[in-house]
Amino acid sequence: MTDAIDYARYDRIRPIRWTGEALELLDQRKLPFATDYVTCTDSDAVAAAIHALAVRGAPAIGIAAAWGAVLAARDIEADDAAQAAERLEPALQRLNAARPTAVNLAWALARMRAALFRAQAGEGSDWRAALEAEARAIETEDLAANHAMGVLGASLIEAGSGVLTHCNTGSLATAGFGTALGVIRAGVAQGRVERVYAGETRPWNQGARLTVWELQEDGIDATLIADAAASHLMKGGGVQWVVVGADRICANGDVANKIGTYQLAIAARHHGVKFMVVAPSSTVDMDTASGDLIEIEERDPAELLAAGGSRTVAEGVQAWNPVFDVTPAALVDAIVTERGIVERPDLSGMQALFGR
Amino acid sequence: MTDAIDYARYDRIRPIRWTGEALELLDQRKLPFATDYVTCTDSDAVAAAIHALAVRGAPAIGIAAAWGAVLAARDIEADDAAQAAERLEPALQRLNAARPTAVNLAWALARMRAALFRAQAGEGSDWRAALEAEARAIETEDLAANHAMGVLGASLIEAGSGVLTHCNTGSLATAGFGTALGVIRAGVAQGRVERVYAGETRPWNQGARLTVWELQEDGIDATLIADAAASHLMKGGGVQWVVVGADRICANGDVANKIGTYQLAIAARHHGVKFMVVAPSSTVDMDTASGDLIEIEERDPAELLAAGGSRTVAEGVQAWNPVFDVTPAALVDAIVTERGIVERPDLSGMQALFGR
Repeated sequence: MTDAIDYARYDRIRPIRWTGEALELLDQRKLPFATDYVTCTDSDAVAAAIHALAVRGAPAIGIAAAWGAVLAARDIEADDAAQAAERLEPALQRLNAARPTAVNLAWALARMRAALFRAQAGEGSDWRAALEAEARAIETEDLAANHAMGVLGASLIEAGSGVLTHCNTGSLATAGFGTALGVIRAGVAQGRVERVYAGETRPWNQGARLTVWELQEDGIDATLIADAAASHLMKGGGVQWVVVGADRICANGDVANKIGTYQLAIAARHHGVKFMVVAPSSTVDMDTASGDLIEIEERDPAELLAAGGSRTVAEGVQAWNPVFDVTPAALVDAIVTERGIVERPDLSGMQALFGR
Repeated sequence: MTDAIDYARYDRIRPIRWTGEALELLDQRKLPFATDYVTCTDSDAVAAAIHALAVRGAPAIGIAAAWGAVLAARDIEADDAAQAAERLEPALQRLNAARPTAVNLAWALARMRAALFRAQAGEGSDWRAALEAEARAIETEDLAANHAMGVLGASLIEAGSGVLTHCNTGSLATAGFGTALGVIRAGVAQGRVERVYAGETRPWNQGARLTVWELQEDGIDATLIADAAASHLMKGGGVQWVVVGADRICANGDVANKIGTYQLAIAARHHGVKFMVVAPSSTVDMDTASGDLIEIEERDPAELLAAGGSRTVAEGVQAWNPVFDVTPAALVDAIVTERGIVERPDLSGMQALFGR
């Protein structure tokens, strides 16, 4: 394989560790200055960690929730998988409610329910073991999907290109390697990507705190910019692709992702810069027809009123803090999943790859 | 006058105070938590305050530089205005070099030189008094221009509108009332503007620290947003106008302003939101044909590597920190100056109002 990628070199961080007894989550609120793990020994601790952004990134919160279900299973007694499913449901609901926008959370929990269903049907009599195996499969498949997407997405990028990314979509946001950041890693490894830019991603600074740190750990040079500087960068010809992840992709190809993604897509189209969305098929939600139907999470305005732990804004000031936005499919040049690429996405292109 | 505005109510802050002995500059690096004035007793202290952003905003730094020239005049001896002009020149050059992008600095210093020329020609024999009178005139005329622009710009805004602004263009950035923020103040006073949004304006957070504070001092409600949330706000119909200031306006109507302005202009056009630039005629530079010719100031990348005084980014990370960008005239719906409005600006529209 001419394009073989040294994954050991280009993927050095693991945000989620299952010890067999507990779930350890790398506390992303403290990065890049401390690499502390939060230890969760029950499912509500996992839900709280998801809600508080100790773990974040659509694929990663799905994986964490799956392990949360494994932990929940230890706290119930049940005669069989059917009874377990019933008794687990409240804990699963609380996990599901920890974040509203990313579909991966609901998707991972649906897989856990299905594993119980199969156990009840006789495929594996030990329902607790079935849950643990399913959580492990979700995690393993996510990493494999990221490796596949990395190569697929990088194939679209011409040698010598500059890319701009937003938020954090790397090892930290997934089981490893990353979605959009996996494409960038693969592109760097193959000599396609020569310049990497990352937007700060206010208000939570995932780009500034996480993405440039992750890339630095891999020895990949990246340049941080203010979110508002992206258009000026594009005008100067510094980037040929914007490469981002997704929290939910609708049946028509509309993409919900971190606030600011939509603005980058508009700017990219204005400058003739290409716009790529990279996400595993678990992020695709063919049950949601279009982006208008997605609930956009609005978080505490306080997140905008402070920076670096210090209050930056006068007392009494109001803020509006939507943390996702929707990029219409018409502004997207390619959606890259482990199943393949949908170029110039629309309903028929999405249906061809994802059914329905 | 049906549209009379209560300027005492809508303009409560003064960033520049001339005591007769010294220049006091409200230290904008400490706002909104402390209202300390930096006292400058010589011109190099004024240049340093301009460079370090203790005073900022294109009109305000022009005014501060004019008072800096008054201070410089106290430190030289000269037989007449011609000799004073020669001996003052090194100090004027140092003031001029304190910031590169805003034309107001050079414009104000050119006025001070012209005042010396007139004094030499016999119009007022006391050249020091002539300089002081000119500095006072620059300040007084700036305030009057802002009052005029406020009413002119507000006349373009329909009742019940929402507006988004960027950076700080208010009393703090001028002799008082403000340019873009003056239009917003006038619009609020007249019932045209119902909703005011301000972008944070990374990396220096002028929107978050200064603009929403200024408006709050006047009793005007404003809502802070992340810079990257502007397009999502526009898509939801929250704003009908983007209203911004300028650091330099070229002969063809291209506008240099705070980084992020260009991105807002692209987003506004995409959504059918109108885009207004408000600046005194001193910001118009008919000697610069187009925005390509403007030197864009790049400041220390360290400004992007910290927030609220704390480092937010891992050691060793690179950043790119251009602090202005150029919005092409084609994306501007109206340039508002105290001389009048240029709609859909181009060279002929600019020439009609500004000659050449």
